[in-house]
Amino acid sequence: MAKASATKIKKTRADGERSRHAILKAAAELATIEGLDGLSIARLAEHVGMSKSGLFAHFKSKLELQLATIDTAAAVVQREIVEPTMAAKPGITRILTFADAYFAHLRNQVFPGGCFFISVAAEFDAKSGPVRDYALEAYNRILATFSEAIEEAQRIGEIDRREDLEQLAFELDSFLLCANFSFLFFRDPAAMRKARKAIEQRLAAARPKKQRR
Amino acid sequence: MAKASATKIKKTRADGERSRHAILKAAAELATIEGLDGLSIARLAEHVGMSKSGLFAHFKSKLELQLATIDTAAAVVQREIVEPTMAAKPGITRILTFADAYFAHLRNQVFPGGCFFISVAAEFDAKSGPVRDYALEAYNRILATFSEAIEEAQRIGEIDRREDLEQLAFELDSFLLCANFSFLFFRDPAAMRKARKAIEQRLAAARPKKQRR
Repeated sequence: MAKASATKIKKTRADGERSRHAILKAAAELATIEGLDGLSIARLAEHVGMSKSGLFAHFKSKLELQLATIDTAAAVVQREIVEPTMAAKPGITRILTFADAYFAHLRNQVFPGGCFFISVAAEFDAKSGPVRDYALEAYNRILATFSEAIEEAQRIGEIDRREDLEQLAFELDSFLLCANFSFLFFRDPAAMRKARKAIEQRLAAARPKKQRR
Repeated sequence: MAKASATKIKKTRADGERSRHAILKAAAELATIEGLDGLSIARLAEHVGMSKSGLFAHFKSKLELQLATIDTAAAVVQREIVEPTMAAKPGITRILTFADAYFAHLRNQVFPGGCFFISVAAEFDAKSGPVRDYALEAYNRILATFSEAIEEAQRIGEIDRREDLEQLAFELDSFLLCANFSFLFFRDPAAMRKARKAIEQRLAAARPKKQRR
């Protein structure tokens, strides 16, 4: 009986210690495996070893949980990818820093199912509603960091001024996307190396040309 | 009463007429929206307007339904993309035929959630088991058509012999992948145009070079 009480007190304290943040971190990880729609409060409670009622104290609805999970994932991407990018020297270096930070976050399995936003994009591409809209907005903010690094590289003369930046951004995004797919689904250990080489070659082709054209 | 009987007979006949194939076509479409794991017999019965027992007559288990759905999707891709590719002139023309057939199948929403195999890859990238293995095999067979078209273009002298074909295939695959994402998730109507341009430019850079290097 004394033991059961101690266990109960310990469990209650453990429940208390798990902050909203820790729960959401686990939710973001789980979402890259099971999907954001697979993220029911019951499933998450089981995953983090909490009671359903304990989780309900933090999130009133599945929708609230889903949106908060997107915020948490965006904060992780901010810390892992956006911040190192903004700390890098503007120009080609900054573009490559974004790519390398992206590859590192895949390699280190920051999320077990790879890129959180690609996971959510694939899940919600043919759906509509608040989760899709919210994820799209967060994804666009992250991609804007990459696009702005490309624009800046052109502005400071490291990319030819005749280069179509929307086209160039599409191509470089393609390589990041394919790195995620090849690494995760095809389990190709060379995925990041190929994507890095593709980006370097494409940026080399985009360098300012004095005589040509 | 007579009317109710007629309706019942009509419904029974309609159930009978829906072949296994028609059910699987609907399953493949639904899987690109809800996921292949979201494809329960109950959910599919509701979607095609059949009874659960009627569907159980065709598929004994969810796994059987999932694997048969992958076969059906692979047959659709075979007809829509692989066959036109194989009918095209070998070389750059055949590579572009694959890409154009791929874009057309996205544009025509052959599957409402875009590319069936990208959907399934994203859903199963961090999972393991028979569905993943079966989808991976089917996906690899489709991609092999594309890789072989690239190899053949090199063999007949339309791609430089020093070009690293694994790298080139990775880059061209990236553009197809990104076309699907940009069109579906970002709803960018220019997605296919950008991917087509990226492929043309990359193939132009891979043309045999007489003097350079």
